[in-house]
Amino acid sequence: MFDPQIYRARREQLRGSLDGGVVLLPAAAAMPRTYPENVYPYRQSAHLLYYVGLTDPGLFLVSYPAEGRDVLYGDPVTIDDVIWCGPKASLEERAALAGIDEVAPAEQLAADLEARRGEIHYLPPFQREVVATLARLFGQNGPQVLAGSSPALVQAVAEQRLIKGPEEVAEIEEALVVTATAYRRAMETVKPGLVEREIAGLIQGVALAAGREQSFLPITTVNGEVLHNDSRDRQLNHGQLMLIDSGAESARGYASDITRTLPVSGTFDGRQRVIYELVLAAQRTAIRATRPGVTYREVHLESARVIAEGLTAEGLMRGDPAEAVAAGAHALFFPHGLGHALGIDVHDMEDLGDAVGYEPGEGRSEQFGLAALRFARELEPGHVVTAEPGIYFIPALIDQWAAEGRHEAFIDYEALADWRRFGGIRIEDDVLVTDTGARVLGPPIPKGADAVESAMEG
Amino acid sequence: MFDPQIYRARREQLRGSLDGGVVLLPAAAAMPRTYPENVYPYRQSAHLLYYVGLTDPGLFLVSYPAEGRDVLYGDPVTIDDVIWCGPKASLEERAALAGIDEVAPAEQLAADLEARRGEIHYLPPFQREVVATLARLFGQNGPQVLAGSSPALVQAVAEQRLIKGPEEVAEIEEALVVTATAYRRAMETVKPGLVEREIAGLIQGVALAAGREQSFLPITTVNGEVLHNDSRDRQLNHGQLMLIDSGAESARGYASDITRTLPVSGTFDGRQRVIYELVLAAQRTAIRATRPGVTYREVHLESARVIAEGLTAEGLMRGDPAEAVAAGAHALFFPHGLGHALGIDVHDMEDLGDAVGYEPGEGRSEQFGLAALRFARELEPGHVVTAEPGIYFIPALIDQWAAEGRHEAFIDYEALADWRRFGGIRIEDDVLVTDTGARVLGPPIPKGADAVESAMEG
Repeated sequence: MFDPQIYRARREQLRGSLDGGVVLLPAAAAMPRTYPENVYPYRQSAHLLYYVGLTDPGLFLVSYPAEGRDVLYGDPVTIDDVIWCGPKASLEERAALAGIDEVAPAEQLAADLEARRGEIHYLPPFQREVVATLARLFGQNGPQVLAGSSPALVQAVAEQRLIKGPEEVAEIEEALVVTATAYRRAMETVKPGLVEREIAGLIQGVALAAGREQSFLPITTVNGEVLHNDSRDRQLNHGQLMLIDSGAESARGYASDITRTLPVSGTFDGRQRVIYELVLAAQRTAIRATRPGVTYREVHLESARVIAEGLTAEGLMRGDPAEAVAAGAHALFFPHGLGHALGIDVHDMEDLGDAVGYEPGEGRSEQFGLAALRFARELEPGHVVTAEPGIYFIPALIDQWAAEGRHEAFIDYEALADWRRFGGIRIEDDVLVTDTGARVLGPPIPKGADAVESAMEG
Repeated sequence: MFDPQIYRARREQLRGSLDGGVVLLPAAAAMPRTYPENVYPYRQSAHLLYYVGLTDPGLFLVSYPAEGRDVLYGDPVTIDDVIWCGPKASLEERAALAGIDEVAPAEQLAADLEARRGEIHYLPPFQREVVATLARLFGQNGPQVLAGSSPALVQAVAEQRLIKGPEEVAEIEEALVVTATAYRRAMETVKPGLVEREIAGLIQGVALAAGREQSFLPITTVNGEVLHNDSRDRQLNHGQLMLIDSGAESARGYASDITRTLPVSGTFDGRQRVIYELVLAAQRTAIRATRPGVTYREVHLESARVIAEGLTAEGLMRGDPAEAVAAGAHALFFPHGLGHALGIDVHDMEDLGDAVGYEPGEGRSEQFGLAALRFARELEPGHVVTAEPGIYFIPALIDQWAAEGRHEAFIDYEALADWRRFGGIRIEDDVLVTDTGARVLGPPIPKGADAVESAMEG
């Protein structure tokens, strides 16, 4: 946990951004795997982690903006807890670690909320167990609970959590230390004959041995062009590319998120190097363009233009690259967004929806590609975002577009015939927006084509 | 997956054990971790895994006992699935792998069930998301769904899944190969100065690199006396014992479950060896007593008597050991059950309650210790159970009992004063009940005190 003062200041800021009412933040539920007692590793609600920092289930923060008062509700420690689960700090002691002076038993919460029923601010719950808990507390049913979350609280939390304090940046960098170790080990290990899952296991093992969970399930695939790839059963063959997208969590639960693409054989072949350098140029352009006052939508588009220019030079696209990007033609190769906010969650606050990545009232584009951009806001110092352009040759998508003749003015489908088995390349770093520009966070992880090849040599 | 014929035969047996109606088995839900799209590794419902074998979410088996008919409901593969998630077998192709000839789109299921609404057999759902899915299908609310599960189906599934076929035993033994490797690595690695989580990470890394999940979160603790220990932050110190309780899953999702207790320094000291040998004697006695026709309750009690005799010889208990066990006095040291059924779930079918471990109509004992016994049935060939006695010195429990003067005739609380910091020892293997006795499953994992010390020498 951070110093209690940090949590106190965060709650004070939150209370100040709301016009009265009662803020209720419940802990995450433990998620059962094969039966109720056999649970996945418990993960605290990111919001409670941010405002309270405690990692136990069963807690509730209740905060009264008008009265400047915070109460932590939880279950008192029983003798049975001590016998079966070992000695544990009392609720009062744990509250003190979060700078909270007032505690109450969880069973009292429903009664305490009763008089304020109409003015409770809570975030949209995404775990059904939490929906059920709130339903019990409010005497409502599930649909009522889901309909009654607070847009004002969503907006206040999104705006606050988007601006990272130095203690948060330090945590992300700490998670990146674990990730950097994992990538260096992976680069030393990847070679023909291995199976994708061995690399996933290596990455997870590095983090677990340091007591760290993954911030998301690692992608370790020789089919980088399959964007939501969750298969790990393929063998690594000479001549293939291996895309690794993974992240760890810091001690206090902040995420890292890194992608590298490696040549299985240890050296990029000619075409691989061309596309690799192009993705890298797009990523470096994005990082250079990242600074306060610019929207991340514009950074995304700059990056896309670099890709369109490169693919035009390569003969796969044609016409004016800027026009191609405006029309969305590049999205055949780069169908996702440049990046997303990063913080306690790897897609920070994705549970709060587009209030996070878009200005109030602003909607997502409906254009294929741009529609997938998760973060489009005007950048401010303290934002942490990922910069992760990619180029993919997705046979099913190419066939679909070719059949429709989509963007024929900008895409040479004939030239593409010879690239169908190329795969995909993505390169991703985590970037802090500073007062004057941007800083890539964490220790360096080999990224240039030569540096990657050297790291694989060992 | 197994051969389709295996799933076909399993479903046929299930249909034969029910008097008509409709059996509905839904897939497990994907469990969100930090936001809806960031999920824990997906785990199929054990029941669907048993009767169908497919590992995708979104499936439903609907089985009609009177008509001898099975239908697999699921979502058809879309072009978007192919683009984003890669090529995927059609629902028909996947159904064929399970020996099911008939498929239908999931969106049609509610309508298809409508006419049979009053006669649907389903198991008690334990994931709230599944409760919500069933509620939508049945046009009911959550409490109605929870109240309406089928005791007949629970009984039929429990009786069927308890008897393991040779293909299932082979899977458990396959999971044990992974676990044996992990324990050998742990034995070579454990030494003073390491931290508990490094051993947990090592064990998980071994499984993950083989593409295998843990069957439950590993316990790796120097406080073995804390039974539900989930802390992993302690340093391993000279003179301590380290208890490791973990298991992996086989390729087809069957569990292993093994416990070993190691001396951190590499050799047991005098007292540690005495208690270790005693736990081992209790475990070997249990395995020898395991055979068809005997209840596992009686095996549990035989094992408890060995412990009581040994602790009496050591001067920690007194009076007649058999009387002490009948009174439940030994449970101060051995407060849990001897074991549980093992199969696809590590506590096999724990979601079905005591229908699994107890004969119909038979209830659990209310005596402390015996009340914790999960499996008490008369043993039959094909049962697979864990044999895992332990001896623990739990200071908070000792203090509680001593203050109450509980079982003073059998326990020498004065002698115990000197043992409060001993910790705990448990030894666990997985045992198949054969036609004539029992067979310990899997490759040997060092178990005798000398064998453990040798394995730690490397």
